[in-house]
Amino acid sequence: MKRTMINALQTKENQVVKVSGWVHRIRKLKSVVFVILRDRSGLVQLIMSPESFKKISLKLEAVVEVTGKVTSSPNKYGPFETHVESLNLLSEVVEDLPLQINGDKLDSGLENILNHRVLSLRHSHESAIFKIQAAIGQAFESFLRQADFIQIHTPKLVKEGAEGGSNVFSLDYFGETAYLAQSPQFYKQMMVASGLERVFEIGSVFRAESHSTSRHLNEYISLDLEMGFIECESELMDLETQLLKHIMNHLQVQCLHELELLSVTLPQVPSQIPALKLSEAIEILKSQYGKTDLEGDLDPEGEKMIAEHILKTTGSDFVFLTHYPRSKRPMYTLPDGETETHSFDLLFKGLEITTGGLRIHNYKQLVDSMVNKGLAPENYKAYLETFKYGAPPHGGLAIGLERLTAQLLGLKNVRRASLFPRDCNRLTP
Amino acid sequence: MKRTMINALQTKENQVVKVSGWVHRIRKLKSVVFVILRDRSGLVQLIMSPESFKKISLKLEAVVEVTGKVTSSPNKYGPFETHVESLNLLSEVVEDLPLQINGDKLDSGLENILNHRVLSLRHSHESAIFKIQAAIGQAFESFLRQADFIQIHTPKLVKEGAEGGSNVFSLDYFGETAYLAQSPQFYKQMMVASGLERVFEIGSVFRAESHSTSRHLNEYISLDLEMGFIECESELMDLETQLLKHIMNHLQVQCLHELELLSVTLPQVPSQIPALKLSEAIEILKSQYGKTDLEGDLDPEGEKMIAEHILKTTGSDFVFLTHYPRSKRPMYTLPDGETETHSFDLLFKGLEITTGGLRIHNYKQLVDSMVNKGLAPENYKAYLETFKYGAPPHGGLAIGLERLTAQLLGLKNVRRASLFPRDCNRLTP
Repeated sequence: MKRTMINALQTKENQVVKVSGWVHRIRKLKSVVFVILRDRSGLVQLIMSPESFKKISLKLEAVVEVTGKVTSSPNKYGPFETHVESLNLLSEVVEDLPLQINGDKLDSGLENILNHRVLSLRHSHESAIFKIQAAIGQAFESFLRQADFIQIHTPKLVKEGAEGGSNVFSLDYFGETAYLAQSPQFYKQMMVASGLERVFEIGSVFRAESHSTSRHLNEYISLDLEMGFIECESELMDLETQLLKHIMNHLQVQCLHELELLSVTLPQVPSQIPALKLSEAIEILKSQYGKTDLEGDLDPEGEKMIAEHILKTTGSDFVFLTHYPRSKRPMYTLPDGETETHSFDLLFKGLEITTGGLRIHNYKQLVDSMVNKGLAPENYKAYLETFKYGAPPHGGLAIGLERLTAQLLGLKNVRRASLFPRDCNRLTP
Repeated sequence: MKRTMINALQTKENQVVKVSGWVHRIRKLKSVVFVILRDRSGLVQLIMSPESFKKISLKLEAVVEVTGKVTSSPNKYGPFETHVESLNLLSEVVEDLPLQINGDKLDSGLENILNHRVLSLRHSHESAIFKIQAAIGQAFESFLRQADFIQIHTPKLVKEGAEGGSNVFSLDYFGETAYLAQSPQFYKQMMVASGLERVFEIGSVFRAESHSTSRHLNEYISLDLEMGFIECESELMDLETQLLKHIMNHLQVQCLHELELLSVTLPQVPSQIPALKLSEAIEILKSQYGKTDLEGDLDPEGEKMIAEHILKTTGSDFVFLTHYPRSKRPMYTLPDGETETHSFDLLFKGLEITTGGLRIHNYKQLVDSMVNKGLAPENYKAYLETFKYGAPPHGGLAIGLERLTAQLLGLKNVRRASLFPRDCNRLTP
């Protein structure tokens, strides 16, 4: 017999069906035993006699396959129940559960949740996070494909240490030293210059930062895009605004149930997200909030304060900070005057979720910029070659998928938005 | 003025437009200079006077922005041409081109093509490969989403050395030894058992194999899927058959132009792909082809021979080989009797593009299987925990994206289907 998904039982009234899933709850009464079965589509109440229940040794979270008749009988879990005719134990539970997963909430600490990821994800609140995350990725792709971007896959094993920072993992690669890509930055720029013009990538990036905060992961998924023939970073900011609108609309339709489960209201994306210069933001924090310890960039407290300020004055949960100083941006960032750059960050509810901007596309200017940053151009040969043979003006941005997910859902720690987070203390599961 | 894409010029007759792109060809006549401009959408002929052409120093592959009037004038590149009124050089060419990219074919060796990837991709035949590859990925996703699979992202930095093989890259991870994932195998199984039931992943995998063949990459993109509550590997084989049909249909519509450019005819996917036991295949090769040197598996020559045999006898470019011996499969493979397994390979035109099968879902059986393979269960704690708390019967498969692309397009070396291939001699660009 073919399996019927629980959410399709409504079409099977008075028929004998096969349902399969996990034992979610057991309630024994004198004359009847209720077994609540869970599959990926929902929950259903199974009815068993105490006699037949006794014959099997059924524990919570065991996997079973059941045949039985579907009858209309409204109960806590839905309008139908299934009267068990046969039950086949597909997979036993061989140890006590380290987590209770059939409560209204997943009542456990972060470490326990992460240590027992397979189990914790069986709670609908926990899996909802990743259903929403999958939908964010899907919306990112569909928006960009519509705008004529092509998906690319670039190597994660690289020789030219991504952005010259020291926070790279290195390894032996057949006798050479290879690094794990900190970002697809160089390669996505190269693909713009290859004539594809508009590219995006969804892939893993690696940062060997040894600090452990609620905002950082040492491996995460970066949603990257890069495009050619643009003149101003505002084109990127406009594109991201439209992209975010598209993502929210997509989630509102695709993930209604999950958003309700998590009691999440999606933010309004303004038709124009407020933008201010970083220097203006620092000035506002100094004069209006008495925050005087900032040196050319915001710290996490400053990000939260300026977000609050923008929310209060404009109603927006989003704010672009622009014109970052050259000293704070990597060598490929296009300068704007002597000290500033054509670059921006996007803060969402007080957390940076995007860095973007225009890039240098002139060969000589790029070499000079490397030298100014104390980098050796001979270490970037393949990347630099790109700019010898005609590279258009271009720019792009990257969104951290886990950060965006966490901020959207109000999760306090970005680890909650990673299936298997990697930090300096965690390499398993 | 807003940029007009070259393939949209037909709507702009007698208007002044801005077009931007690369200088594809230059042809100087006495009274006129033809400059062929290329953008991501196509080619157009620009008309300049010899006088204005002389004023600028225009090299092939320079990036320019041109304003001019569009007139109807059928030529080799299309029905319209553009009379240049102003030309702005956006990016110069500062060195001689190491490749000629405006010929009918990209007439260069593989090493040169890969060494100068950004340039070689400007040839329409080369970029067509990756437009088709992007469409394959898109079709993979859309088919699986339709079938209720969820996209997941699992870590590439792992502690539990993926499948017990020795071909793993290792690195120092904050004082611990980490490995680069050889596959998302363990994690996708864990996600099935987490209750998601049906998952897919498109991600990088890493193999530290030191042999250099036309079929192997040390880093590639794996199209992975895994599903729960299945009873037989034929369910996976049927799913893959439908998936391949969907991919071909998608390519036929989305990539008509690219397939024509590359003179590629897509294969017919039979409604039922021929399947035979590996042992039967070996027997056929022995008795009908005189190939007697096989020991429990096919070698590349054997794969080609059996593919030929199947093509001749059934007309199919695809063949499933089933019932691989336990000795040739990893410890998680579900045994079928004493010596065989519930697993399969899919050969396409004589090359293995998929390995799949059912997995062991019983905790004790999995521990025993590890021990039988000489592996220490204590090295697989997090993975093993999955099977303590109720894991459904499940299975899955993986398709190598570059291999599938290369075989579809008749590329002789899989490197041609990787933007930036990694092999034991190549870590750049």
